[in-house]
Amino acid sequence: MDDINFAVLGTGGIGRRALDYSTRKDHLTPVAACDRHGVAVDHDGLDVEELLAATEGNIASEGRRPSEEASGDHREPRADGGTQAVKQSGAMKGVAASVQAEPTETPIDDIIAESDTIDAVLIALPNLEHDFIPNVGERFAEADYEGVLVDVLKRSRVIDILDEREETYEDSGITFVCGAGATPGFLTGAAALAAQSFVEIEAVEIHWGVGLKSGYEDNRGTVREDIAHLDGYDIETARNLTDEEIEEIVAEHDGRIEFTDMEHADDVLLERAGICDAEDVTVGGVLDVRSDEKPTTTTVRVTGRTFDGERGTNTFQLDDATSMEANVNGPALGYLKAGVRRNRAGEYGVFGPADLMPGF
Amino acid sequence: MDDINFAVLGTGGIGRRALDYSTRKDHLTPVAACDRHGVAVDHDGLDVEELLAATEGNIASEGRRPSEEASGDHREPRADGGTQAVKQSGAMKGVAASVQAEPTETPIDDIIAESDTIDAVLIALPNLEHDFIPNVGERFAEADYEGVLVDVLKRSRVIDILDEREETYEDSGITFVCGAGATPGFLTGAAALAAQSFVEIEAVEIHWGVGLKSGYEDNRGTVREDIAHLDGYDIETARNLTDEEIEEIVAEHDGRIEFTDMEHADDVLLERAGICDAEDVTVGGVLDVRSDEKPTTTTVRVTGRTFDGERGTNTFQLDDATSMEANVNGPALGYLKAGVRRNRAGEYGVFGPADLMPGF
Repeated sequence: MDDINFAVLGTGGIGRRALDYSTRKDHLTPVAACDRHGVAVDHDGLDVEELLAATEGNIASEGRRPSEEASGDHREPRADGGTQAVKQSGAMKGVAASVQAEPTETPIDDIIAESDTIDAVLIALPNLEHDFIPNVGERFAEADYEGVLVDVLKRSRVIDILDEREETYEDSGITFVCGAGATPGFLTGAAALAAQSFVEIEAVEIHWGVGLKSGYEDNRGTVREDIAHLDGYDIETARNLTDEEIEEIVAEHDGRIEFTDMEHADDVLLERAGICDAEDVTVGGVLDVRSDEKPTTTTVRVTGRTFDGERGTNTFQLDDATSMEANVNGPALGYLKAGVRRNRAGEYGVFGPADLMPGF
Repeated sequence: MDDINFAVLGTGGIGRRALDYSTRKDHLTPVAACDRHGVAVDHDGLDVEELLAATEGNIASEGRRPSEEASGDHREPRADGGTQAVKQSGAMKGVAASVQAEPTETPIDDIIAESDTIDAVLIALPNLEHDFIPNVGERFAEADYEGVLVDVLKRSRVIDILDEREETYEDSGITFVCGAGATPGFLTGAAALAAQSFVEIEAVEIHWGVGLKSGYEDNRGTVREDIAHLDGYDIETARNLTDEEIEEIVAEHDGRIEFTDMEHADDVLLERAGICDAEDVTVGGVLDVRSDEKPTTTTVRVTGRTFDGERGTNTFQLDDATSMEANVNGPALGYLKAGVRRNRAGEYGVFGPADLMPGF
């Protein structure tokens, strides 16, 4: 009864790690996975080892990607126009190279066709446009999917789009858990918890640090996305930067770029859970593309007033040794399980991480 | 639909603060309260201000009590044999002194008689014997109560008794949330959250600090209970100490007593939620009865291995300025709301704080 069958859309870093991670968890069975080239389905459970080996190329050229610690928007368009690198194995690429898979041109539809027996779907697809993930959800709703969809997106405005379409998901019987990575996700949940000493929240400060293991060359796509958060840039202008221009910006910052007031959905997710006003939430971080060490310790600070009139700041800190991969994927699967529990209890609609915490 | 009516059994520190606290929360209406002398019921909502004034004596002689930060077992037997001080107002005492109340000799039965329209009951009674709170739950079950019971107890063996009787609560339709104070409770939840970076937990260390505002004289009952955690003592021997003997022990420690390996239910509550083994959890703290300052910062440290082989320690810290009252009562009402949500979804039985976190 506690067993959960889940599917993964996308086999980039997050998708592959979700498969890997699930082998360490009880009662969590991956039964389907796809990328744009192939789909693998086995309702008794995929052979994860084989599938990971087959899709190895999907992540090999990705290295550790900076925006994942901060987010979940994990596979932004690459300079070559593709969204991910894929392994070529004979004539097959990516998932299709697995002996468990079939090549397909309609991977998402193929998963939807099997979704009757899938409890949850982790959407680990590149979020190319703001409405891309909401649209994927809509396709599941059109097929009357009853189950859980989980994304690890980070942009506030995507949450708004999901909220606008909440009725569609509700009508289908979908429990849509959004922003379930590191931030928003792990750190949003920590903020909701840390807020419990207080009756009034003055400030939630989320500050992340990411040190890139393999240099930034392999991660230019993500660096590009982060640059969109710098003063003077937005997603549109960042998308149009040449590689050389990106390199110049990185060099100007000596490889260490600080981000302030990022458009991360932590703010709207905390507000919708009734924890605080969105305007009291700030998200920032430091990305060091030339060091493996985190340039700053990932920290959540929640400042408020207690019911007895004191003012204080509770603090949650992640050890520098914990990778962004661990901090995205552990919580993502935890929130997935929480979503399944809600779904089985008949609770449908759009849920943020803080909504899934005790009802503070 | 989100509105919650709740009752409070007991109007000592935690009960009174729950009433106070609820006035700061939306959708949370106190409709009943009792102590051993009286019962007040108003299904449209109690006049909290009047009730607090009437029961003021219940807390005035309690001061800030050390074991609450650490626990929730908040009104241990006092040296005088009573379990709480009560205000005398004319011929009436405690709750009975309120214009909203009636005197009674069967306060709990009186609340049970009204429980059809009560969503949740916070049990803030002295936990004199290990099975006292489980027995209160059984009385609600015998009356076929369908709703939420919340306690803020702390002893591991009480959880065991609740677990043994889970079927009784389930059959009635009761969602019993146990250990929902500071520790276990707030800090147990933080440990469950902080564990999400890891696939294997090596150690959970919970360390609390409490500085007594009003000296220890008024809190000898609680100091007595804490002494039961010291080497060479147990609950039985501590109960038989004279006031002079307690004073000697306090003096031997220069007013600052350190506790290690306390029998706090955080261990069993984390194990039952699948976070770690009970034996990997340690709870300790420092009680300073001669200073208002916390002698140490209340901290949760979770050490584990990430899925990618790193070892790290995530940390959650409460600001020294947050009182144990704030850290018990905020979470208690949060867990109460979480319990109501579960209850309305048809989930009955015994739940610890970590069970109510995202399904990690």
